[in-house]
Amino acid sequence: MSTPSPQRARSAAAKQQRERAILDAARSLGAERSVREVTLTDIAAAVGMHKSAMLRYFETREQIFLALTAEGWEDWSAVLRARLSEFTGDTADPDAVAAVIARTLVARPFFCDLLAQAPLNLERNVSLDSVYEFKTVVLGEVALLVSELCRVLAITERSAIDLISTATSMAGALLQMAAPGTRLRTLYESRPELAHALVDVEPQLTRILAALVIGMRSTGM
Amino acid sequence: MSTPSPQRARSAAAKQQRERAILDAARSLGAERSVREVTLTDIAAAVGMHKSAMLRYFETREQIFLALTAEGWEDWSAVLRARLSEFTGDTADPDAVAAVIARTLVARPFFCDLLAQAPLNLERNVSLDSVYEFKTVVLGEVALLVSELCRVLAITERSAIDLISTATSMAGALLQMAAPGTRLRTLYESRPELAHALVDVEPQLTRILAALVIGMRSTGM
Repeated sequence: MSTPSPQRARSAAAKQQRERAILDAARSLGAERSVREVTLTDIAAAVGMHKSAMLRYFETREQIFLALTAEGWEDWSAVLRARLSEFTGDTADPDAVAAVIARTLVARPFFCDLLAQAPLNLERNVSLDSVYEFKTVVLGEVALLVSELCRVLAITERSAIDLISTATSMAGALLQMAAPGTRLRTLYESRPELAHALVDVEPQLTRILAALVIGMRSTGM
Repeated sequence: MSTPSPQRARSAAAKQQRERAILDAARSLGAERSVREVTLTDIAAAVGMHKSAMLRYFETREQIFLALTAEGWEDWSAVLRARLSEFTGDTADPDAVAAVIARTLVARPFFCDLLAQAPLNLERNVSLDSVYEFKTVVLGEVALLVSELCRVLAITERSAIDLISTATSMAGALLQMAAPGTRLRTLYESRPELAHALVDVEPQLTRILAALVIGMRSTGM
């Protein structure tokens, strides 16, 4: 209603700046290692704050990463919708659309890590208000993607939701199984009898999503 | 080579019995709450052992749950293969096969919880020897399932592997999202604007797997 005082406005801007610094530090650390290996203490050290002071901005370590997951959805959704908008004319080739979905996800390994962590760990250690805020952002982006996927692929709304669920959950799961850069990956590569444990995320995700779309279409789902 | 002394045999049997008691206690607790909420201290208390004594049998909490994940694969694979063996004659109806796969997974919520936890958390806090042992069991069961799925569905080996990956990863992910019996589920149910966050695992998993199989078949994959 009333215009905030200049002092209030300054302090709101300062708070926002501080939140941004915390999120950026968490993102850098999470992208460098993996989300599971980043503690609240690590983030506090990177941003040069005391852990107790940081908890004035975020409830928990998980709330920081949940906020980054919401940002990841906004970013991925915008990029994917831009790419989907290039498909014009009649219904698009399922392989081409599957390749675009898989490629845009695989190009965002930190987001894929967050996608795997969110339902298991992140949503479980925050307030219900934070979950509500997070789900509202995600459902909004899903709705935008659904409408674009229905147009491009001529599938039903329910199928588009299933497609997004599968794409994001499988990207998260397959990247965890692929475990790039870890001692697990080294183990799989060194033992021929474990060759089937070696996951190559982008081609496998593309194959699965393409078959899924073809199946959805052929049954008119 | 030589027959073990009666004393050695007794102590081996006692060790095995003790391991079994630990696994059973972890299974009860994990099924009752959720895997993420069970600590090593909880398991030790349930089995009536000291935590330090329990670590003579298992390296970590994660090794206990990873052993239960391997047992979960053996159990699910045996049941699913028995059900698949009932499909005789020419290629089976994809919807019927998808329904059997989804139903046998959804009937095992503790296994689904483990499936979600394994690549993210369980495989990361055990020795490479334990990962090797675990992966060997899983790959063995996958190979048995692949051969049965290829026969029943007339799909390629690679498609059968993709199908098992999708079924197990999506069962794990969807169950986490559905979050039955949690305050998250209550939140989704109480807010109409979050209705799309409500996941109903069995029908959604069945739809996705059926479309996937139809797509694999129609492209001869």
